[in-house]
Amino acid sequence: MVLAKVVGTVVSSHKSEKIEGIKFLLLEKIDPITMKGKNDFVVSMDSVGAGPDEIVFYVSGSSARFTNVTEGKPTDSAVIAIVDFIEKDGSYTYKKD
Amino acid sequence: MVLAKVVGTVVSSHKSEKIEGIKFLLLEKIDPITMKGKNDFVVSMDSVGAGPDEIVFYVSGSSARFTNVTEGKPTDSAVIAIVDFIEKDGSYTYKKD
Amino acid sequence: MVLAKVVGTVVSSHKSEKIEGIKFLLLEKIDPITMKGKNDFVVSMDSVGAGPDEIVFYVSGSSARFTNVTEGKPTDSAVIAIVDFIEKDGSYTYKKD
Amino acid sequence: MVLAKVVGTVVSSHKSEKIEGIKFLLLEKIDPITMKGKNDFVVSMDSVGAGPDEIVFYVSGSSARFTNVTEGKPTDSAVIAIVDFIEKDGSYTYKKD
Amino acid sequence: MVLAKVVGTVVSSHKSEKIEGIKFLLLEKIDPITMKGKNDFVVSMDSVGAGPDEIVFYVSGSSARFTNVTEGKPTDSAVIAIVDFIEKDGSYTYKKD
Repeated sequence: MVLAKVVGTVVSSHKSEKIEGIKFLLLEKIDPITMKGKNDFVVSMDSVGAGPDEIVFYVSGSSARFTNVTEGKPTDSAVIAIVDFIEKDGSYTYKKD
Repeated sequence: MVLAKVVGTVVSSHKSEKIEGIKFLLLEKIDPITMKGKNDFVVSMDSVGAGPDEIVFYVSGSSARFTNVTEGKPTDSAVIAIVDFIEKDGSYTYKKD
Repeated sequence: MVLAKVVGTVVSSHKSEKIEGIKFLLLEKIDPITMKGKNDFVVSMDSVGAGPDEIVFYVSGSSARFTNVTEGKPTDSAVIAIVDFIEKDGSYTYKKD
Repeated sequence: MVLAKVVGTVVSSHKSEKIEGIKFLLLEKIDPITMKGKNDFVVSMDSVGAGPDEIVFYVSGSSARFTNVTEGKPTDSAVIAIVDFIEKDGSYTYKKD
Repeated sequence: MVLAKVVGTVVSSHKSEKIEGIKFLLLEKIDPITMKGKNDFVVSMDSVGAGPDEIVFYVSGSSARFTNVTEGKPTDSAVIAIVDFIEKDGSYTYKKD
């Protein structure tokens, strides 16, 4: 899984019928040490109700179809967790307010 | 999923019989903030009737076989949505005319 | 799918029994605008009878097992089409002789 | 599979219900010759009880669902082995204490 | 598939029970034209008895589970062929002794 920040949304009215009603988040991958954005973006299906500026991790590939929200859908990316904290070598690099 | 622009088509008369009758779009990946092309291209099966210059997102890998058009076909990329707008940090980086 | 040129072959007499009798092509990925090689190579199973110097596109990952030739085989890459032409923004970047 | 070092953990209280109770490790990919970190990180499900500073290798993609711990779960990365030693050209580049 | 050279082995006594008894090779990806190593490494399950310094190609992703040795196992990489020769534009870039 890869750590990222929710930075926006992508909206489409004309899409595959199988993905009607799903929210598409624009994620920016982050460096989990500096917590800076990497200017590398992915469109991901939300399975946990993540909101703007939250740090999340998402799953890629076929496993993105293994959440309750995304089962059987044409998706290669799903947000599966909102991060509370990241610990590295005994200290926090990130802690949710 | 990854954001891209439809920049052309790829035509083949000699191909796997399973992909007869499918349209192959040439997509250029874009930076969703500046909306500039990244000079990085992919050939994708169209599942939504996307046309030239439209901003779309496509799904990669096994999930590309999960649209009504691409089921059971040897494809690793399918366009699944034509984008209306991209919102980042409260403003639009892109809005379809 | 990714555009590439057939630049050679890879031959092995000692291999997984499931891939006996299959032709392995050496592909060089190309830039579909300039048509130049990218010095990036992949070994791909041929499912369409592609020959030297032909422009093709290949499918990667699990979908490489979805051609008639490659079904059930341990492959992550299969050539599925010989390209007739590539059209970008209304002009040809490539046209087969 | 890819060699990495366990450098931390990622904790989430709000996540897909299918991944409750699983430990998420923060891994840093390493160069297996110099054993230096590559400043490239991945969040991986632990299937072997790996701890801080251990050298491991992890499996990516759909195969990450093929351990006893991760079966049926939305994961694209699982630690499947703690490394005892890495041998290259007849000498050890790494040997566990 | 990707061309690589067998440069070593990775040994683990503490691993997922499903991968007991399998040999893990350390592979270095090569440029198939110059045959030089790319300093890019992967840990791969051996399905063909490849030995030190041999040129092989390996399959990645779910298809790595489609050899007789790796079926049902948590692997994303399997060596499926020892290369006899690589031919490019009519000449050999590599020929096994």
